[in-house]
Amino acid sequence: MMERGQIKELLAFAVELVEAAGPIALEYFRRPLDVTDKSGGVWFDPVTQGDREIESFLRAELVRRFPEHGIIGEEEEDREAEGSINWVIDPIDGTRAFMSGMPAWGILLGLTDGDACLAGVMHQPYIGETFFGSAEGARMRRAGDEVELHTSAVAELSSATLYATHPEMFFTEESREAFDRVAAACRLMRYGGDCYSYCLLAMGQIDLVIENGLQPYDIIPLIPIIEGAGGIVTDGQGGPANEGGLVVVAANAKLHEQALELMNAKA
Amino acid sequence: MMERGQIKELLAFAVELVEAAGPIALEYFRRPLDVTDKSGGVWFDPVTQGDREIESFLRAELVRRFPEHGIIGEEEEDREAEGSINWVIDPIDGTRAFMSGMPAWGILLGLTDGDACLAGVMHQPYIGETFFGSAEGARMRRAGDEVELHTSAVAELSSATLYATHPEMFFTEESREAFDRVAAACRLMRYGGDCYSYCLLAMGQIDLVIENGLQPYDIIPLIPIIEGAGGIVTDGQGGPANEGGLVVVAANAKLHEQALELMNAKA
Repeated sequence: MMERGQIKELLAFAVELVEAAGPIALEYFRRPLDVTDKSGGVWFDPVTQGDREIESFLRAELVRRFPEHGIIGEEEEDREAEGSINWVIDPIDGTRAFMSGMPAWGILLGLTDGDACLAGVMHQPYIGETFFGSAEGARMRRAGDEVELHTSAVAELSSATLYATHPEMFFTEESREAFDRVAAACRLMRYGGDCYSYCLLAMGQIDLVIENGLQPYDIIPLIPIIEGAGGIVTDGQGGPANEGGLVVVAANAKLHEQALELMNAKA
Repeated sequence: MMERGQIKELLAFAVELVEAAGPIALEYFRRPLDVTDKSGGVWFDPVTQGDREIESFLRAELVRRFPEHGIIGEEEEDREAEGSINWVIDPIDGTRAFMSGMPAWGILLGLTDGDACLAGVMHQPYIGETFFGSAEGARMRRAGDEVELHTSAVAELSSATLYATHPEMFFTEESREAFDRVAAACRLMRYGGDCYSYCLLAMGQIDLVIENGLQPYDIIPLIPIIEGAGGIVTDGQGGPANEGGLVVVAANAKLHEQALELMNAKA
């Protein structure tokens, strides 16, 4: 397993790298986009030139600096690791927010060793915020200021705020009903957060994020930020969320337990 | 009716005033809130100290400068105009976004003469953007840069992006079904925009906003921004939207016509 000092160094590198990719994203943000539909029209899945340029920039820097590490990204083929260390890239998480001009998207970069998510970064260059975390904790920096992140102490669903990006994420009846049961028990539920939701949870601003249909690269880079701030990330059964799919993210163990219980209750 | 030069002067004043209120909002944004439930628990309707302080600041400045003008605001009693000119205030539009740490809320200030919406301002102080408009056009300023706003030329629903804040806005079956018919015809539909959606439409980033259950102060300050950028704002029958309720906002006349037609089609 990697040493703490080494993780810290790699995280600092990742933060600088992702922030350096911010201007590439801003070249395309709120500009006319050449949108390609990857899915062949079945489901609107936009991929922009910005996505591809950012991933290609991040990959080139990672390969140059860490040729032995693997790379898993949204837009290109996986690069095999010589050992067990991988970088996980989502060049623009929240492409639909990006295309709408809404700054709830982010550039994501995570570091894994086997199944362990060691470090992660989310950068929102238009707002100018960077969220990053590891076992050492989670922090946010903006305009030279840096603050520690701590999840909320809200311990009851009836006082909790729940976020998800879009109702259509819950495309199975089971996931839809599970989400609705939790939503009905919460004080407030809102859609539209994209990856920004997980950062709001790390900041203690919201208390639950439940999403479905995620790819591994959508969640892996966010796990160390959420956990570093004190939150809990699992799949729908309380197991690891690294594979994506349905994820249940809570500010603390009490809320997480209540959410999972309701989600898995028979209707 | 007010002269153009006078409207221009009042709009410039309004922009400065609303931007001066930004720091008050930021005192409360992402800080622990003393949330009061106005509705007595029936519907979660948070009012923060920030709301009240902002409205009180704006009112004091408006009364000092224009004692003859009326003031209509969310938090306090209406102030009667000596003539037909009124200022319309929503101190924090998008309180639920505000409480969640999501910067999709805004401080709204509009200027009306009878039924005419002459000028309007939306300020998002965390992102640092100000959107403002009148019959002269619409503009956005941020960090010293100022750009003209123009709505999109997207002329078919099948290429359009539709926004609304939350599905529960459509609390009548009729409004729900009308919204769903338009959503099904659009390329992309997203929730979670709050007042920021209308500014995204003015910027040409999205093409339609359909919302329900609005108060007059939720929409009046935004009308001159939308119309100044080339957009169209009406109620569900194509009449004026000043009263709030159901509003249909489109980037151009073609889209607006298609949306209204679908909304009013018998199922």
